[in-house]
Amino acid sequence: MPAEPTPDIDLAARLFAGLHERGFDGVGVTRDAYGPGEQAAHDLVRATAEGLRLETETDAAGNLYMTLPGRDRAAKRIVLGSHLDSVPRGGNYDGAAGVLAGLAVVAGMQAAGVVPARDITVLAVRAEEAGAWFPTSYPGSQAALGRLSEAALAVRRLDTGRTLAEHMRAAGFDPDAVRAGAGRLGPDNTAAYVELHIEQGPVLDAEAVPVGIVTGIPGSRRLRGARVVGEYNHSGATPRRYRRDAAIALAELATRLDAHWAALEARGHALVCTFCVLATTEAAGFTKIPGEARFELDVRSVEMGSVDAVFAELHRLVPEIDARRGVRFELKAETGSAPSPMDSGIQDGLARAATALGVEHRWMPSGGGHDAAAFAQAGVPAGMVFVRNQNGSHNPDEAMRMEDFAAGCAVLARWVAGAAG
Amino acid sequence: MPAEPTPDIDLAARLFAGLHERGFDGVGVTRDAYGPGEQAAHDLVRATAEGLRLETETDAAGNLYMTLPGRDRAAKRIVLGSHLDSVPRGGNYDGAAGVLAGLAVVAGMQAAGVVPARDITVLAVRAEEAGAWFPTSYPGSQAALGRLSEAALAVRRLDTGRTLAEHMRAAGFDPDAVRAGAGRLGPDNTAAYVELHIEQGPVLDAEAVPVGIVTGIPGSRRLRGARVVGEYNHSGATPRRYRRDAAIALAELATRLDAHWAALEARGHALVCTFCVLATTEAAGFTKIPGEARFELDVRSVEMGSVDAVFAELHRLVPEIDARRGVRFELKAETGSAPSPMDSGIQDGLARAATALGVEHRWMPSGGGHDAAAFAQAGVPAGMVFVRNQNGSHNPDEAMRMEDFAAGCAVLARWVAGAAG
Repeated sequence: MPAEPTPDIDLAARLFAGLHERGFDGVGVTRDAYGPGEQAAHDLVRATAEGLRLETETDAAGNLYMTLPGRDRAAKRIVLGSHLDSVPRGGNYDGAAGVLAGLAVVAGMQAAGVVPARDITVLAVRAEEAGAWFPTSYPGSQAALGRLSEAALAVRRLDTGRTLAEHMRAAGFDPDAVRAGAGRLGPDNTAAYVELHIEQGPVLDAEAVPVGIVTGIPGSRRLRGARVVGEYNHSGATPRRYRRDAAIALAELATRLDAHWAALEARGHALVCTFCVLATTEAAGFTKIPGEARFELDVRSVEMGSVDAVFAELHRLVPEIDARRGVRFELKAETGSAPSPMDSGIQDGLARAATALGVEHRWMPSGGGHDAAAFAQAGVPAGMVFVRNQNGSHNPDEAMRMEDFAAGCAVLARWVAGAAG
Repeated sequence: MPAEPTPDIDLAARLFAGLHERGFDGVGVTRDAYGPGEQAAHDLVRATAEGLRLETETDAAGNLYMTLPGRDRAAKRIVLGSHLDSVPRGGNYDGAAGVLAGLAVVAGMQAAGVVPARDITVLAVRAEEAGAWFPTSYPGSQAALGRLSEAALAVRRLDTGRTLAEHMRAAGFDPDAVRAGAGRLGPDNTAAYVELHIEQGPVLDAEAVPVGIVTGIPGSRRLRGARVVGEYNHSGATPRRYRRDAAIALAELATRLDAHWAALEARGHALVCTFCVLATTEAAGFTKIPGEARFELDVRSVEMGSVDAVFAELHRLVPEIDARRGVRFELKAETGSAPSPMDSGIQDGLARAATALGVEHRWMPSGGGHDAAAFAQAGVPAGMVFVRNQNGSHNPDEAMRMEDFAAGCAVLARWVAGAAG
């Protein structure tokens, strides 16, 4: 493995500052997908790439490709990427860190006069923040892979109400070509997709480890419109045996499912189980026994067997609590997603790079979804590097330290040198 | 004990119809305290009492006294009463049944030519529905007893925002006299206050018993603004051990307190324990671990020791859950009330009357509060007769059967004959 050139962290630092300046909304950072915020970020990044004399292209969906040409232009390329949109009033690092890490790596190679064996493409993906803008999974990456569905193009942006296709066209792109499957990347021409991203949870910070090697992006099973129906009655005048209390039935379900999660974890399962909403309704009030309560449940694991174990317990508990408490759980439609394991060869390569550099690291599952899932599902070997981050993500207080970012970039650069050197 | 005259149930039936006609709001019945709804009811009842040639008076607070004079006008009187206001969109029976029962009893005595040994006063009380109008306990009864506080007169009606004193004055009454303690009733001139009321819970209906003899009105301890503070975090990216989940902490508290209630009941305690509100806040949403939840807790029993046992368990559980789950319960101010046991002599007398008449009955605590509590607290011997009712109270579906009402009135009449014959 050749010694890797040093990534240009100063370049990335200047870009972080430029992105913050363009995206600051008075509270946090807003880079709205297929809107002015995201476009300003693409413009800045593209200008920088052009300054570096990278080959710069945009596809029909507006994804930006910035390529350091390799010796063999026909060889499968390596893609280093992430997204440039953010949630409203979010932080400056979620997404952007992965694009800027790619630029830092290729700029370092250029500065060292390294011509890689194969093309290295830095990819700035569109519209990853599905919860904030277009509620569909990874539309930018799916378009880059030629896999964006007709249904996804018809999804409406949560704030504007206009469809993804309309937004694409208004931003100067070509939804018809996207619809026809005009992707640029796939297993036939892409050796690997590797994404650096801030960790969205507290694990690396709590454990004082700067870098995570991601084992996979979890699958999920979710209830988003579930409720419990009981009967409203006078809280003073209704003895215990005549009650049909929806709130206490839900509290019992949540408590017992939480205990089941703890038991699964004790047996070695890795999963998360969250009642994101757990609430009596507006009709509740003092001196009334709650006649209705609603909840949202989110269960995730890289191993679907662990998720299924929670749902099996849920389906065992519901009829038992229904019968004993005189209520009726209505779970309604279930949604979910399959897990996306990261490529084991890439995981091993990233870990070897970190070890060689003396960068402390740990294996960990991702918590949230990432563009890497779309590549893995399309059959492109995918990997992720997490960088320690304070205060979570999707808020103005995201606080990645530049020294941790530099450690992540160094791991990425070393891996690239091995994979494409 | 002399045979009692038959209560005039037809008169009561006509009054129920007249009250419904005047109070129907398109959905249920609304008789707003110190507003046109309550006044219309008072006008109808007063006109009927005048037709019966009862002595009819109104006190400074607008309570209506309708008296069948006794042979000894100086003897302590017997009061048969309840309230004429209703909750918004409520039923026709909650409150009114007790006033109409009193009129039916005295009209029956008149028709039979019975002159009682002492005065029998039918009392129509103002503004009992504290949860709907003026949030203070029994202001009408307190005024009748000369015990209404300055603070209570300053309480504002929940819908109009105007004070109780302002409403009294606008309705033509004299809050200054009320403030000066111008009560008409007390232990010195009142032998007994007896209130017939529909049962607000399901017990009599479920157990196929038409009449309840009330043992007491429960005391309570209440939390109305309690919350749990944890930390909002990403539901996918935050492992179990790093969570500070407010909702699951609250669910555990509710479930364990519910189990404690069941255990107390198994040991012979009679109480109710209700989480009337149990809810994540508006800030909750999908992919977030709830960082805050709020709750309202209502614990009641005729025996304060049983209420205190629940609160002792609450105060034991809170620091334990705080520490284990990394949250902070904030219980905030506690409110409550002392229990009001009904007079044992009156309970026994009512039960003897029911037995003599062959009316099935059972002893039971009240669930909600009633004007009888104000009389008991003022030192007037008080009692209550519950009448079986379908579909609970405070809703348009209240459905007392007239045959059950007649059974309750018969018990009342027989007791009056014994107590005042």
